[in-house]
Amino acid sequence: MKAEIITIGDEILIGQIIDTNSAWIAEQFNLNGIEIYQITSVHDDRIHILESLSAAHDRVDLVVLTGGLGPTRDDITKHTLCEYFNTALQFHEPTFLHIENLFRNRNLPMGRLNRDQAMVPVECTVLFNRNGTAPGMWFEKGNTIFISLPGVPFEMKDLISNEVLPRLKSSGRTRAICHRTVLTQGIGESALAEKLDNWENNLPPEVKVAYLPGPMAVRLRLSAYGDSEAQLIDQIQKKMDELKPIIGEYIYGYDDDQLAGVVGNLLKERGLTLSVAESCTGGYLSHLITSVPGCSQWYLGSVTAYSNKVKMKVLGVSEEALNKFGAVSGEVACEMAEGIKSALETDYAVATTGIAGPDGGSADKPVGTVWIAVSGPGGVRAYKFVFDKNRGRNIIRSAQSALQHLRRIIIEEN
Amino acid sequence: MKAEIITIGDEILIGQIIDTNSAWIAEQFNLNGIEIYQITSVHDDRIHILESLSAAHDRVDLVVLTGGLGPTRDDITKHTLCEYFNTALQFHEPTFLHIENLFRNRNLPMGRLNRDQAMVPVECTVLFNRNGTAPGMWFEKGNTIFISLPGVPFEMKDLISNEVLPRLKSSGRTRAICHRTVLTQGIGESALAEKLDNWENNLPPEVKVAYLPGPMAVRLRLSAYGDSEAQLIDQIQKKMDELKPIIGEYIYGYDDDQLAGVVGNLLKERGLTLSVAESCTGGYLSHLITSVPGCSQWYLGSVTAYSNKVKMKVLGVSEEALNKFGAVSGEVACEMAEGIKSALETDYAVATTGIAGPDGGSADKPVGTVWIAVSGPGGVRAYKFVFDKNRGRNIIRSAQSALQHLRRIIIEEN
Repeated sequence: MKAEIITIGDEILIGQIIDTNSAWIAEQFNLNGIEIYQITSVHDDRIHILESLSAAHDRVDLVVLTGGLGPTRDDITKHTLCEYFNTALQFHEPTFLHIENLFRNRNLPMGRLNRDQAMVPVECTVLFNRNGTAPGMWFEKGNTIFISLPGVPFEMKDLISNEVLPRLKSSGRTRAICHRTVLTQGIGESALAEKLDNWENNLPPEVKVAYLPGPMAVRLRLSAYGDSEAQLIDQIQKKMDELKPIIGEYIYGYDDDQLAGVVGNLLKERGLTLSVAESCTGGYLSHLITSVPGCSQWYLGSVTAYSNKVKMKVLGVSEEALNKFGAVSGEVACEMAEGIKSALETDYAVATTGIAGPDGGSADKPVGTVWIAVSGPGGVRAYKFVFDKNRGRNIIRSAQSALQHLRRIIIEEN
Repeated sequence: MKAEIITIGDEILIGQIIDTNSAWIAEQFNLNGIEIYQITSVHDDRIHILESLSAAHDRVDLVVLTGGLGPTRDDITKHTLCEYFNTALQFHEPTFLHIENLFRNRNLPMGRLNRDQAMVPVECTVLFNRNGTAPGMWFEKGNTIFISLPGVPFEMKDLISNEVLPRLKSSGRTRAICHRTVLTQGIGESALAEKLDNWENNLPPEVKVAYLPGPMAVRLRLSAYGDSEAQLIDQIQKKMDELKPIIGEYIYGYDDDQLAGVVGNLLKERGLTLSVAESCTGGYLSHLITSVPGCSQWYLGSVTAYSNKVKMKVLGVSEEALNKFGAVSGEVACEMAEGIKSALETDYAVATTGIAGPDGGSADKPVGTVWIAVSGPGGVRAYKFVFDKNRGRNIIRSAQSALQHLRRIIIEEN
């Protein structure tokens, strides 16, 4: 089954919001054997929406529209769908009662505009939106299914999971698909491709490979399409197993593994604990770690020491080191790591200190200069980086680099 | 000038990465008076790319393609562009020398696949990519400009800023445009629209309004298109000024204002300081705060106390409160806020404690239960929330709610 996603709304086209909905839908559909042929973002504009519906109708079996179902005037999707399917709006009592109930539970008065949301096209199946006031709508035209959903992410997600996918699966029109991703670090895209030249030449025709480079890692994605899911999984697993002897030293995880989760598993398996001291990363490193469910088994906590006073008072960094080497130095990074490790009594600790920017740099220590220290049973080590001028990117790269070094040292020492 | 963005690459269509590039390009183009008509994501597939190029050619003046320029086999954009523009590849010496130089600087051997990146279509203007090995390419066909850029975000961004926009502006084909966004809190989309009914009826025809609801705020976007930029700015400002007497109490900021930045400005103006104690937000609240450039003027630091031991030892939370009320309670939240405020000697402190999930809930305190406390010169206050089952969303909403309450209390007390 081939599908297209059409997002409706000016906010994506002026760059005010990022289209995370489409990525989520695409992922869910792929996991369920529905291939996404195209994703299109169009304006809240009648003609533009009508043209996109026609074009998609000619190309695919399934069209999912998101957005433009709100109660305000700029939301024109419902009226445009009526025009496209040559139908009219009618009052839908179950939807009305649900909206009334939502407002009663929230102790809010129900306005005229909300009442209008209970008007739905005659020629559609209403999909119940338990989380919001705009229902989903399911249309069919020729062999193509059209589904219109609200753009609010958690409403849309619930409708896809609990209404759309169950109905599509029971229609029996889906096809088997399998994706796996190998996560590598410490090797560039081209070098990886050259090492894998021979392996790529021996891929079965139904398996495709893509290299996905990122700032901290190169991901290698294997995809297979066919009829038997079990066969595809087996084929891809065989090719993945062949990778270990060729590039095993660079592989740190698979699929959705996050570096913080990989580090957490290493600690958990060995019964070790971790604490963190942050300056330039300002809490982001601790956030990455605490995004891992169950991290309280191996993570005790952190201190963000944005001022020197806090570095001294809470982490026990010496005034001497701050004066002699400055807050952004290997010495202070080491003292921060050792300070938090002893304060929270953990086996490992990692610390960051640097100049995230945009201000605060000097000729000697330009914006982007970052020191990372890892303290563990084998002692303390510090590493220097010079990233770039962008505050947000420097924070992310510093935190990721800290996790990378921590991972390597845990493996080395245990 | 009307433009389209085409992103090339299977990774977006399988939902493996989110298309942040298009949002960034759309924002930059809008700021420069170029309207984005459509954003389309297509496969690394020759026919699909060719069809998208033809369709876009008939609709707009400018087509920007990103992705598919890497050195590996799955990258077919360059060859497909040669086919579309009926041209061939030739060796481009400046690009070759630049690639050679990049590899020399990184102390890496230059591979065969990288050498191929210096082959560029005869019929194009090469755009210098200082940050990477794949050059940008500028083509013209009829009245339409086609620009192909690498998909790596920082390479693409540098090319747009330093090559594409200067060339487009000097071509004189751009049109005036103005967008402003009003950020509101504490009022729903429909209630806001009903309050603004009369105001909307009196909008000049060239000004459009959109309501952008989110989990924590409703944004109101005003857009105007025309010939004179000064006139548009003036018109939109007049309509924005009219909003203050109608919905002023709900407005917390404008345009790209972030709640943490708004809170920071309130503190800075009053010469006050802030510290943070986190449990369920795990560092994310501190991360939001330290994402504000220059925050060290008013932010001293934080403690993430993931274990009770750390809550007691570092924040001075009493064993009694932990035993009697549990770690997730108003009492412990208050003691955390007061503990960090006195440890770091700040004017204000905010604390979070809760059950982010997916595990750890009970009948009494389900997953999503969160307590937030704000401590300031006027004493300490705690607020209870029950969010949902999603760990990531609970972390974000807890941190945003903490900032909201902090903002309200700073205004109230000062």
